[in-house]
Amino acid sequence: MFTACELGVFDLLLESGKPLSSDAIAACLGASTMGMERLLDACVGLKLLAAEMTLEGGKEALYRNTEISNIYLTKSSPKSQYHIMMYYSNTVYLCWQYLADAVREGRNQYERAFGISPKDPFGAMYRSDEEMLKFMAGQNSVWSICGRDVLAAFDLSPFTQIYDLGGGGGALARECVSLYPNSTVTIYDLPKVVQVAKEQFVSPEERQIAFHEGGGVLLVESLLNEDKSGPVETQLYSMNMLVQTEGKERTAAEYSKLLEAAGFGVIRVRRTGKLYDAVLGRK
Amino acid sequence: MFTACELGVFDLLLESGKPLSSDAIAACLGASTMGMERLLDACVGLKLLAAEMTLEGGKEALYRNTEISNIYLTKSSPKSQYHIMMYYSNTVYLCWQYLADAVREGRNQYERAFGISPKDPFGAMYRSDEEMLKFMAGQNSVWSICGRDVLAAFDLSPFTQIYDLGGGGGALARECVSLYPNSTVTIYDLPKVVQVAKEQFVSPEERQIAFHEGGGVLLVESLLNEDKSGPVETQLYSMNMLVQTEGKERTAAEYSKLLEAAGFGVIRVRRTGKLYDAVLGRK
Repeated sequence: MFTACELGVFDLLLESGKPLSSDAIAACLGASTMGMERLLDACVGLKLLAAEMTLEGGKEALYRNTEISNIYLTKSSPKSQYHIMMYYSNTVYLCWQYLADAVREGRNQYERAFGISPKDPFGAMYRSDEEMLKFMAGQNSVWSICGRDVLAAFDLSPFTQIYDLGGGGGALARECVSLYPNSTVTIYDLPKVVQVAKEQFVSPEERQIAFHEGGGVLLVESLLNEDKSGPVETQLYSMNMLVQTEGKERTAAEYSKLLEAAGFGVIRVRRTGKLYDAVLGRK
Repeated sequence: MFTACELGVFDLLLESGKPLSSDAIAACLGASTMGMERLLDACVGLKLLAAEMTLEGGKEALYRNTEISNIYLTKSSPKSQYHIMMYYSNTVYLCWQYLADAVREGRNQYERAFGISPKDPFGAMYRSDEEMLKFMAGQNSVWSICGRDVLAAFDLSPFTQIYDLGGGGGALARECVSLYPNSTVTIYDLPKVVQVAKEQFVSPEERQIAFHEGGGVLLVESLLNEDKSGPVETQLYSMNMLVQTEGKERTAAEYSKLLEAAGFGVIRVRRTGKLYDAVLGRK
């Protein structure tokens, strides 16, 4: 799936508007026919492509995208996961190669994977403008499919001034404004992230900068069960934070404790049943 | 799963004979407590470990192997998959990092992954005695769980002289002798493989060397559907052969054609419903 995305298989099949043969796809994408045929057949097995035999030729298969590929794997789709997949393919996969070292040492593996000091994980993740841009585009991919659920988990319409801490490329803010038309969202992030967000992701019409004291904070996180017995996706996220950052996933009780210590009196938790959950703290 | 195997988590829990805390496991295996706790919880989510809370302490979890881990993930079990997993972890994973290049170029990725010439894939796989030994132990892991099914797919009792081409570490031969007590099996492989097999895997009592003209040949392969639409495991195997070797997976018809060309008149195919299938050709 990752390789077919990287090579542009799904984009080509969307643009062509008709099923294509393995040879045609290989020629268009500058790939070997032997390798491409095998990749396409594996994508059929994974239900990312559908193949039909030509009536005339008899033996040649023609490939087309399945609906799920058109929605999630083409670059141009509003719900495209292309950017986050490329981030996983080119950064996360390389860190996970050193998972055993990460568990032994209890720290991230940027040094082994990229020769970069592990002391400042966000410095490592944002080691070049290009890498930062890829990460921001990747985060936007995620919020294009997960954003609405976490924002609708609570009725946030009483909050007209909303602050998105670490809001990056602005896709969550965009979902928020769409769901709560009376809200304004202020994105807080590192200065260089904000600069790129303004240049590349959020147009001036969309953006409003505001400051506000007090209010509520919505934590958008993937919650561990209280006994940490699951969900397995969240446990694996926590493994990933070990190899890539200094953070970890937490239980609802752990987040509540953090919020209480920061002076939030009323704390409520909602699980969305999807990857990200919502914790609301009020001052 | 791979990292917990590599660090020896399942072996330690088997040997200890009692559930252990995360701190105890980390200390025994020389790992960080922070990384180990996260790894253990992820293994609980993957159902490779079970955790129970201590009654006295209240909050500390004790971890033990699940049955599947005792059978397949401990080194000492007769059905241990430890060696093949280490092979996947340290060789296959690294080649798959370059899957897009493999599809572009239509050839294996030993050069990018290990700086080794891709022209002789078995030379690359057997680039040192240690690597060859790991590969042979890995193959033996596979036959310890898949061997009996392919050998029982046909009644091979009429064949008392059996030749195992590329028989490596001898685990398939051992299953064959166990299932057909009247058979003798001759392993054919590269001279250095045979030497290591004799020294490390097959004791003199087990081994009989014999030659025989004619007879039958049992191809033990993972068969693609005739339209190559699946099974997805076999398609992924074929992708792996692209990044690691020069071979590919084939359909039953393709194998039949190869056998016919080699003079085998009667060819029969049986799918086992598991990973490997059986094709019998008779002369």
